[in-house]
This record gives sequence, C-alpha cells and structure tokens, in this order.
Amino acid sequence: MGLKEILSQAKFAQVGFVVNNIEETKKKYALLFDCAEPVDFVCGEYSVMQTRVFGEPAPLANSRLAFFDLVPGVQLELIEPNQEPSVWRDHLNKYGEGIHHIAFSVDDATPVVEKLKEEFGAVVEQEGIYGDGSGRYIYLDLQKDLKCRVELLETFKK
Amino acid sequence: MGLKEILSQAKFAQVGFVVNNIEETKKKYALLFDCAEPVDFVCGEYSVMQTRVFGEPAPLANSRLAFFDLVPGVQLELIEPNQEPSVWRDHLNKYGEGIHHIAFSVDDATPVVEKLKEEFGAVVEQEGIYGDGSGRYIYLDLQKDLKCRVELLETFKK
Repeated sequence: MGLKEILSQAKFAQVGFVVNNIEETKKKYALLFDCAEPVDFVCGEYSVMQTRVFGEPAPLANSRLAFFDLVPGVQLELIEPNQEPSVWRDHLNKYGEGIHHIAFSVDDATPVVEKLKEEFGAVVEQEGIYGDGSGRYIYLDLQKDLKCRVELLETFKK
Repeated sequence: MGLKEILSQAKFAQVGFVVNNIEETKKKYALLFDCAEPVDFVCGEYSVMQTRVFGEPAPLANSRLAFFDLVPGVQLELIEPNQEPSVWRDHLNKYGEGIHHIAFSVDDATPVVEKLKEEFGAVVEQEGIYGDGSGRYIYLDLQKDLKCRVELLETFKK
C-alpha cells in the first residue's frame, strides 16, 4: 500500500495540551468557549489500558483528561499527567504547560505507524488502550520531519 | 457586550508552526497529506503590514509562510521567520521548531482583544496587516490562563 492509501484515511482530530491543574484550566476554556465545564476523568485502569512508554509497560503512568469541541470533529484536549514518567509528564517537566500534540484519527493505526516510521523516521513514544476499551492511541515523535508529536487514534471496529 | 457575544463569533482556524527551513518542512507535509507543495511566500512589505512587536514598529520583522488544509476551514501554517526579533523568531530561538500558536478568525478583533485582556490577562505580542492588505492579525500571549499563544485573524469587510 502506498503512502496515499495509508494516510488518506487520517483525519485531523485534536490539539492536545498538558497542564498542571486541569480543574483550573478547564474553567478558563469553558469561559472562553462559553460552554459548560466538561467532566474531567482519569484515563483508566492499567488492566485495560496496558500503557507502554518507549515500549516498556508503564502501569503507573496516568492522567486526567477533559475535552472541548473546537469545530465539529476537532477537539481541544486538556491532559493533567500524574507524576510517573510518561509522554505527558516528560513534556510537562521539560517544556512546561502548553500544546503537546496534534492527533489524527485513523481506521487502522498499524500500517500508518509503519509508514510514518519508514517515511518520516517516527519514533513510538507511548501507546495504550482507551480507558473504556473502545480504541487505542499511539504517540509518535515526528519532531525531526514534522516538527511536532503526532497522536494516532483508532476506534476498534465492533 | 458580554463574553458570550464577543467570543461566540470566534472560529478555530489554524495551528501554526515555526520552522527553520520552510522548503524542507513543506515538502514533508506535502508528502504526509499527499498533496501538491503549497507555494511559500514572504508575508509582505512593511508599508502595508505595519508590523508592531510589543507595541513598537518592527519594519524588519518578517517571515515566509505556507499553508495546508487540515480540515475544511482549519489550516496548518508553516512560518519561517527572518532573523529580526518577532513573535516568530523569539519563539524559535527559545523553544526550537514546533507549534507556535492556535488561531481563531473573528469578525472584529478589537472587542475580542479587550475581552481577552480583561478576562484572561492577554498580552498583545505582535500585530500587523496581511501582506495583501485584506485583513489583520494579532498575537496574544495567553500562556497563564489558556496555556498557549492565540492569534486572532480578522478579514476586513469590503
């Protein structure tokens, strides 16, 4: 399959932020967007999530999440990581609060990851299952070629 | 006018990146999105742009720009700043290549800027007219409350 077939399924879905205090920041964004404060929630349990950081099981890495709609189909995600090493905590410690990634939803992440490794030197930083078991995410370091971290989001087919 | 009226007109429009070499990075993004490489161009002439950095005229601050569509109405912007102090060059020197801002298009930037100053402690970092004279942009530091830089984009009414 060529790059075109692989990536044409990718849909821009998210701008993700890491923050120190999700309660405070979600209040501000709710004020900005003049909407109700979204519920924030812990990502999930390791038994479901199977989080891996740089390929190693990371049972203690976790975060709280909250979402706002930017435009239909595109969300602003707030992430408050716990203190354990993760793609979230490491970014927060290194760069402070701010934009952490952009995300694309894809039908099948596996060939996209392979293609991004092949064509753009992508490095898988972290991956796991959604807390509710409905899909999976993969964070890829694409700083060298694309100047950012990209998250792939795959909803499992029922 | 309340926050609701002021901000309800704002439409998410852009994720902006600063890069060292726009030629190289736009090639990569064209490959990623499987599209033709967009033309990159110099922002414009100071006689039109009237660029101000922290309130002071900045006749030498400039950059090259290129745009990709992420979803209809939302663009990925690549910015290669020249060496003069600007909101672009300062970010690039301080943080390296990466995501620089998110942008919202608004009907009338003036009351939005006032409201963002009032409610979120926004600081105007840079502003100017589009190179073709068709509108204006304002960069606001909203790091404290919103954890990012926001750009407002206003197209002048004809």
